[in-house]
Amino acid sequence: MGGEIVVRPAADEDWAGLWPLWHAVVAAGETYPYDPETTSEAGRAMWFAPPPAYTWVAVAPNGGIVGTYQLKPNQLKLGDHVANAGFMVDPELRGQGVGRRLGEHCLNAARELGYRAMQFNAVVTTNTASLQLWRSLGFIIVGTVPRGFRHAVHGEVDMHIMHRFL
Amino acid sequence: MGGEIVVRPAADEDWAGLWPLWHAVVAAGETYPYDPETTSEAGRAMWFAPPPAYTWVAVAPNGGIVGTYQLKPNQLKLGDHVANAGFMVDPELRGQGVGRRLGEHCLNAARELGYRAMQFNAVVTTNTASLQLWRSLGFIIVGTVPRGFRHAVHGEVDMHIMHRFL
Repeated sequence: MGGEIVVRPAADEDWAGLWPLWHAVVAAGETYPYDPETTSEAGRAMWFAPPPAYTWVAVAPNGGIVGTYQLKPNQLKLGDHVANAGFMVDPELRGQGVGRRLGEHCLNAARELGYRAMQFNAVVTTNTASLQLWRSLGFIIVGTVPRGFRHAVHGEVDMHIMHRFL
Repeated sequence: MGGEIVVRPAADEDWAGLWPLWHAVVAAGETYPYDPETTSEAGRAMWFAPPPAYTWVAVAPNGGIVGTYQLKPNQLKLGDHVANAGFMVDPELRGQGVGRRLGEHCLNAARELGYRAMQFNAVVTTNTASLQLWRSLGFIIVGTVPRGFRHAVHGEVDMHIMHRFL
């Protein structure tokens, strides 16, 4: 799977195919602070936000969307040299390299857009797969917010802030 | 000054009186990531954002606005038990207790709104007065983002993430 997927910019028409994946990740309430009951319309408005946010999708050979990421400035003007990004992979395809493929693509895209660093504000500490992936891609934990995330299964858990220069 | 000012919810009509202070703080480019060239209209849209954001002003006996803060959730739904806040004090009135008065007021307002903690995402490390104030009000540094802020005078400087439970 990892070698066959194509990563390309998302088009408006991709939302219908992306929504089941996006909804599955958000509804689980385990990794993102989005309201688990976020509607398709509200999800689209956030994930397909206009520039300077940009969204990509990972597309399988059969045309199905298997992953996505959104890249945007982490702060307003005087902090907009630091990027922020969010990633989602089809829950049924985890562990097959899609996340790594998207992560590497995103780091390159951020460099091309002129960002100097990338920061994640809310890596839920129970999300060990993501933590391991970001560490392997050069991110370090620069902070930890205690009990900052209300996990659907584990209750209030800590969130890591992760960072790397580009 | 500190004992005479009144802190009250901001009304739309307050923006005209608040703008000179807000603009002076933002235009300096030393403490907030807002574009130093932010227009009055854009500033108003951000600082007077609708609920769940709430804004207060500190008003001097002569009716002049001498400070302000905005209180809002730091994250979307599953992280919205943690508040975020931003504070501004008239640059000509610093060191007179207005910031402390606003900080204490904000902590109480956050408790009344049901928040469980408060988090600042971008306390510029050169802003020693703010760091000292927040420490004295019970905040601790839970993380540091390297070179995350392009300071108008000092160039790229670190930002602290500060936190306290309520």
